[in-house]
Amino acid sequence: MRRATDEGRDTRALEALESNVRIYSRVFPAIFSRARGSIMLTECGRKIIDFFSGAGALNYGHNNHEIKAAIVEYLDSDAVVHGLDMATTAKLEFLKAFDSIILQERDLQYRLQFTGPTGANAIEAALKLSRKVTGRKNVISFTRGYHGMSLGAIAASANHFYRVGSGVSLSGATFMPYDGYLGPDVDTAEYLRNMLLDKSSGVDCPAAILVETVQGEGGINVASKEWLRSIQAVAKDTGALFIVDDIQMGCGRTGEFFSFEFAGLSPDIVVMSKSLSGYGLPLSMLLVKEELDAWQPGEHTGTFRSNNLALVSATAAINIYWRDQTFSQGVHRTGELMRSRLEIIASEHGNGFSVRGRGMALGFDCQTAEIAEATTRKAFEKGLMIERCGPDDQVVKFLPALTIDHEILDQGLKIFDESLAETRKSGWRYNA
Amino acid sequence: MRRATDEGRDTRALEALESNVRIYSRVFPAIFSRARGSIMLTECGRKIIDFFSGAGALNYGHNNHEIKAAIVEYLDSDAVVHGLDMATTAKLEFLKAFDSIILQERDLQYRLQFTGPTGANAIEAALKLSRKVTGRKNVISFTRGYHGMSLGAIAASANHFYRVGSGVSLSGATFMPYDGYLGPDVDTAEYLRNMLLDKSSGVDCPAAILVETVQGEGGINVASKEWLRSIQAVAKDTGALFIVDDIQMGCGRTGEFFSFEFAGLSPDIVVMSKSLSGYGLPLSMLLVKEELDAWQPGEHTGTFRSNNLALVSATAAINIYWRDQTFSQGVHRTGELMRSRLEIIASEHGNGFSVRGRGMALGFDCQTAEIAEATTRKAFEKGLMIERCGPDDQVVKFLPALTIDHEILDQGLKIFDESLAETRKSGWRYNA
Amino acid sequence: MRRATDEGRDTRALEALESNVRIYSRVFPAIFSRARGSIMLTECGRKIIDFFSGAGALNYGHNNHEIKAAIVEYLDSDAVVHGLDMATTAKLEFLKAFDSIILQERDLQYRLQFTGPTGANAIEAALKLSRKVTGRKNVISFTRGYHGMSLGAIAASANHFYRVGSGVSLSGATFMPYDGYLGPDVDTAEYLRNMLLDKSSGVDCPAAILVETVQGEGGINVASKEWLRSIQAVAKDTGALFIVDDIQMGCGRTGEFFSFEFAGLSPDIVVMSKSLSGYGLPLSMLLVKEELDAWQPGEHTGTFRSNNLALVSATAAINIYWRDQTFSQGVHRTGELMRSRLEIIASEHGNGFSVRGRGMALGFDCQTAEIAEATTRKAFEKGLMIERCGPDDQVVKFLPALTIDHEILDQGLKIFDESLAETRKSGWRYNA
Amino acid sequence: MRRATDEGRDTRALEALESNVRIYSRVFPAIFSRARGSIMLTECGRKIIDFFSGAGALNYGHNNHEIKAAIVEYLDSDAVVHGLDMATTAKLEFLKAFDSIILQERDLQYRLQFTGPTGANAIEAALKLSRKVTGRKNVISFTRGYHGMSLGAIAASANHFYRVGSGVSLSGATFMPYDGYLGPDVDTAEYLRNMLLDKSSGVDCPAAILVETVQGEGGINVASKEWLRSIQAVAKDTGALFIVDDIQMGCGRTGEFFSFEFAGLSPDIVVMSKSLSGYGLPLSMLLVKEELDAWQPGEHTGTFRSNNLALVSATAAINIYWRDQTFSQGVHRTGELMRSRLEIIASEHGNGFSVRGRGMALGFDCQTAEIAEATTRKAFEKGLMIERCGPDDQVVKFLPALTIDHEILDQGLKIFDESLAETRKSGWRYNA
Repeated sequence: MRRATDEGRDTRALEALESNVRIYSRVFPAIFSRARGSIMLTECGRKIIDFFSGAGALNYGHNNHEIKAAIVEYLDSDAVVHGLDMATTAKLEFLKAFDSIILQERDLQYRLQFTGPTGANAIEAALKLSRKVTGRKNVISFTRGYHGMSLGAIAASANHFYRVGSGVSLSGATFMPYDGYLGPDVDTAEYLRNMLLDKSSGVDCPAAILVETVQGEGGINVASKEWLRSIQAVAKDTGALFIVDDIQMGCGRTGEFFSFEFAGLSPDIVVMSKSLSGYGLPLSMLLVKEELDAWQPGEHTGTFRSNNLALVSATAAINIYWRDQTFSQGVHRTGELMRSRLEIIASEHGNGFSVRGRGMALGFDCQTAEIAEATTRKAFEKGLMIERCGPDDQVVKFLPALTIDHEILDQGLKIFDESLAETRKSGWRYNA
Repeated sequence: MRRATDEGRDTRALEALESNVRIYSRVFPAIFSRARGSIMLTECGRKIIDFFSGAGALNYGHNNHEIKAAIVEYLDSDAVVHGLDMATTAKLEFLKAFDSIILQERDLQYRLQFTGPTGANAIEAALKLSRKVTGRKNVISFTRGYHGMSLGAIAASANHFYRVGSGVSLSGATFMPYDGYLGPDVDTAEYLRNMLLDKSSGVDCPAAILVETVQGEGGINVASKEWLRSIQAVAKDTGALFIVDDIQMGCGRTGEFFSFEFAGLSPDIVVMSKSLSGYGLPLSMLLVKEELDAWQPGEHTGTFRSNNLALVSATAAINIYWRDQTFSQGVHRTGELMRSRLEIIASEHGNGFSVRGRGMALGFDCQTAEIAEATTRKAFEKGLMIERCGPDDQVVKFLPALTIDHEILDQGLKIFDESLAETRKSGWRYNA
Repeated sequence: MRRATDEGRDTRALEALESNVRIYSRVFPAIFSRARGSIMLTECGRKIIDFFSGAGALNYGHNNHEIKAAIVEYLDSDAVVHGLDMATTAKLEFLKAFDSIILQERDLQYRLQFTGPTGANAIEAALKLSRKVTGRKNVISFTRGYHGMSLGAIAASANHFYRVGSGVSLSGATFMPYDGYLGPDVDTAEYLRNMLLDKSSGVDCPAAILVETVQGEGGINVASKEWLRSIQAVAKDTGALFIVDDIQMGCGRTGEFFSFEFAGLSPDIVVMSKSLSGYGLPLSMLLVKEELDAWQPGEHTGTFRSNNLALVSATAAINIYWRDQTFSQGVHRTGELMRSRLEIIASEHGNGFSVRGRGMALGFDCQTAEIAEATTRKAFEKGLMIERCGPDDQVVKFLPALTIDHEILDQGLKIFDESLAETRKSGWRYNA
Repeated sequence: MRRATDEGRDTRALEALESNVRIYSRVFPAIFSRARGSIMLTECGRKIIDFFSGAGALNYGHNNHEIKAAIVEYLDSDAVVHGLDMATTAKLEFLKAFDSIILQERDLQYRLQFTGPTGANAIEAALKLSRKVTGRKNVISFTRGYHGMSLGAIAASANHFYRVGSGVSLSGATFMPYDGYLGPDVDTAEYLRNMLLDKSSGVDCPAAILVETVQGEGGINVASKEWLRSIQAVAKDTGALFIVDDIQMGCGRTGEFFSFEFAGLSPDIVVMSKSLSGYGLPLSMLLVKEELDAWQPGEHTGTFRSNNLALVSATAAINIYWRDQTFSQGVHRTGELMRSRLEIIASEHGNGFSVRGRGMALGFDCQTAEIAEATTRKAFEKGLMIERCGPDDQVVKFLPALTIDHEILDQGLKIFDESLAETRKSGWRYNA
């Protein structure tokens, strides 16, 4: 274990050598050495409870030992680690496990496409395929939606900071109001339908409608079952593909494996990444309905697609957690527990605070960026890693590992409560 | 070990479950189970010599055991595998090793930016940064250039098949003739200079000039030292950033660590990926001159940037291969050996065949796609994995591991020679 | 005068020699030889009452003799007809007359910019100037809005038929719902405000908000005074320029010279064309607030800007009709008369017909394209020229000359009534 | 006649009321009142010889009395002045005259499309039609080319000042080197062919190749017969439409009616404007091969297309000047006279001056903007209106009326010679 002075020296080295663009090394100022489950350890020995989970990439916790065993065994045997998109034993096993345990159990039928191992690349592939299939260019995406940083993905993302950062004029997407954006009395799905059926709306016929069932980055905004079904119907009626971006909300985050199961949707394309590999290894994938799988061989390529090591961990995760309902039920229970605890905290502190979300993706709306910032900063000082989201970063985002121990969960929630209390004491301005 | 009948069943399973987009499982029809160095093993026990190296991602061979040791040790210790862009022990060690062993030794000074772990994402980041720094939009790229599949990267890539596949009208890049494109008598760098200084050329002032020193995908086209220096000077004189895409040609492929060392260039941004991790794990990175590191914190993000496991293998690779000149000298020697062998083969077969390349990136120009296709197909049947490139896929691309054993290299070259001879016997049409 | 057989021969000649793109020679199948006021004469001697007025370009009627006198005198004297944008006596006289009689009387202060003599070109110039002034790219335009056919103008126009016809992916404009588009209970100006102030709405900060106070092409949709004021306020609060497209609704069409006077607006830019010249001669113009007149000399040019013959007729029109309130009051009276007559017709025929508009720009909503088409076709057979508009061409558009004789107006309205009655008899399908 | 003090007052009024964008009122600082043939008269009585001809819009001189007679007669008779694109007697007469006198005489067969009456609008229509016919988006245009100011036209224009002024990122055109751009030894048509046939050139398949046979705005750059034929062949071989922009060089400017007759070309589309109306009235037109006339009715519209008054003057011009070869022969003779006079001037003054052009479109290359500017400024003071062109405005552009009297031509050339001599005396810097 190192001392704080060493860490100071290391931090300076990092600042000198790594680009200004680094962000989490600033938000969570420490050098992390080890991690296990929901606990991270810094170089100088601090324990940090992790409610951030690699922005949703660590649903099964850090360094999950059951999954690790599969990876290490794979490495030991000199099985193929890098093979572009050649057929490998690892890929075959993943295909079969995903098909039988995930898809067939849910009466779903999809072809799997392994894209470059980032969510953005999978989004790019999904939009490209939609444009190819429909011969159209436009994509409908939604206020507060976030889908990635490459030029095709950012064009469909709502965040102005990122959009301006692209340095070019983004085109190819039209933004429509998400569920609830115009208040409870306006059905924004109906508005979308009107705009798409109107021959003089100015909104060009879309190749796809791209939606998150819960917007993570956008502020944990939850779409209703009915709204999602309406959007799926609008897509069908207007000849657009219906794409669910399940990058952050998939892999059990909302309780079921897919975030859209609760609404009984049947998306044309599902986009997966983040927790798919189960161990934080880069892996992304599209699920594509067979009749839409219009690719020519090699039309979308990439050096690191179907990263075999990640396929191995992904197969392990499926086998371990998704063979029956137990894990899913546990996620729902823990989610309810979290929600009720957070609602109590919200009501105790008053100030217009509110809680929203589904499963174990919860948002605590602090109303102002100042409160949220001060609270999460204090929380980190006290040993809790937690991040903010929403257009003004005013929402604290709870994304603990789905496997989190309830005792650690309690500790984390307590730290959050205390941090909020301290922020309160230091005086906050009410969001008028 | 499995029998061929099992492999047939597995192949059918894969075809049913994986998207049509898969390509290398068609080109190299086998299911691969294990790999070591330059040898891959199929499920039914065939040994394949690998002259493709994961499209340049495996410069140190498959499952390099010295590098593997570092990965397994890292996993064993529960060190942080996924940490977004937080500071980790693994990242610090990589930063320090890369800075001292690679940069300082070459009198180079760069900030390191870890992007999403695909080459395309790194290219997207490089172009975005160039646009931010210069306030311009256009990018100069070159005939036959290839930089990736996401929308920003493909816009700067010359291949029509991929461009059309994007499904939208690509903009933001202007293509200029690469070195030699207009024949030996026209200095295309001078033409570029004229177009950029002419107030009425129609070519908008560029944010960047993006170049590969050897075009891999484009047909192993080699730029001369003088041309590259002229292009760098044009960038400087026109206020554009000079970006070298060293994704495929970096990490020793042409002999030195960077492919531009031979020309004494000092790019504003260097883009790295593929063999950077040394073990086929996804990792990408920009080298950015300090004064151009204009990012705001978090302005370019991504879940899998600074993939720690890949940083560990990357650090190992640097320590093992780049602490002195030995490895680099070996690559040059092996490259010369390959080239002379290939030139003999070319002259023996006649037919206008020619050899080009630098270091261990060599192209054997078959003049027609038919000859190249038949030859590589036969080669695979005989136990050699080798790929084609160029606008008509008429160039056979030799990218063996830099660590390849000379005996295996000989076997591979012999298979190639025999395959060419068989193709010849079956009668080829001369490329008139 | 010619016979019908001559006209038949001429029609065939025209079909052989003129492009398929011709439209009004199909909708109004006749060869027109002469015209005066609200009456057109065909080659074979039919008299047609004109309720179309050159799509709004003939507010003062055909070949208005008072205006003609000025043109002929100008031609006779060999005054400058074509002079690019040089200073001419004709231009000076127009500038002075427009400034004193139109602007100063309304307490308005604008610089005048003469653009290429089409409305589209004036729109292009207005958007270009907005982008220059603000450094932004996006433009807000509205559902059902129409602004012209060149690439910059069509990008801001809502009609899909025209948009698709452009042959490229249009970008640079975001369409928002016009007043009333989301029903009477949703304030779409408020929605626009929210979208523009939300940092994560996906709608990029606009250079301009471009609006028609009454949408002509879009179906005679009328914006309320309050809504227009809110839109002007949104523009101000978000740093966008507020542009009124008064191409069709200006020059007295709604009663006052500018269509926005009734709402007390002060647009940053006003776009004028169509009836500006008063005689159907091509002329277009921007009114630009002095502090926004950021053009460099020659930055927007064109061979036919400030068409001197059209400036002469424009000056005459201003002097004849706008020196006092008489003409404007007459337009209001005639407009009210038309509206009450049309409302009676609508209620007599039932079927959900309705009337809307302002001043002498009125729309009779037939609910279906079939009814509107049949009715206007019959009307032309009976001697009335009248056109349709709206997303499905279901609205009959009444745009008689502002100078129309009440007797002729009556005759025209009677023909319309009879045509509608005949359409009714032939059985129409109610628009469920 | 007015006094200079009046003109001063008027100039100040104009500056107060007209936008900064005005350019020729600055370059030619005077208020023009009358004009006839090649002489313009200012308000205070100065006579100016016109070698500019409304930037090529006045090939038959100012207020040509034979043409005027037709216009005045038309106005007198109350024939239709504005009729959108309805069939009118005036249009029929133009169609027949143009077909028989211009087209049939040259064995050409085209459909005529009347677009909005600016060159830019005609270019927009030509590109739109090309994109519709081919289903492609890209357009090939050339270094130094100029085609207009609306967004579609400027995207295909090379001038940076105008491109930047558009305020958006222009896309949809690829610029290739014009004839001679890469020096006398490089065949740029061959380069274009290679780029378009190469599957990995980065240049997307074009809908059209758009070319001027002599670049007016770009510096009086003359393409050879052979090069133009090669470009036409490249278009044919690559499935692109071949469009000649004859806006400035048509209507006799180079000797024949069309500027491409000398090379025996058969363009798919010809774009006409400027001198088409013969009297400086706004009129533009496409000539489209019948099999390419793929428009749907009304797909490209505009209020002022087929401006009837301009059709009347256009018909008169054709009848007067193009019924036989006399006029054309005269243009050639006068052009040769001008050229030999200018070449003498060039050689007398030395300094690297040179003369280029075809017919009566000649450029005197002063090598530097300073010399050209000083000379044209002095010329205006001495009574000669003449303009500059080229990327640095270093070329003096001679575009006198084709009908110019030789005595006036002599006077003008003499003024130019004297102005150059005075500039010389005041010392010029040689262009090294």
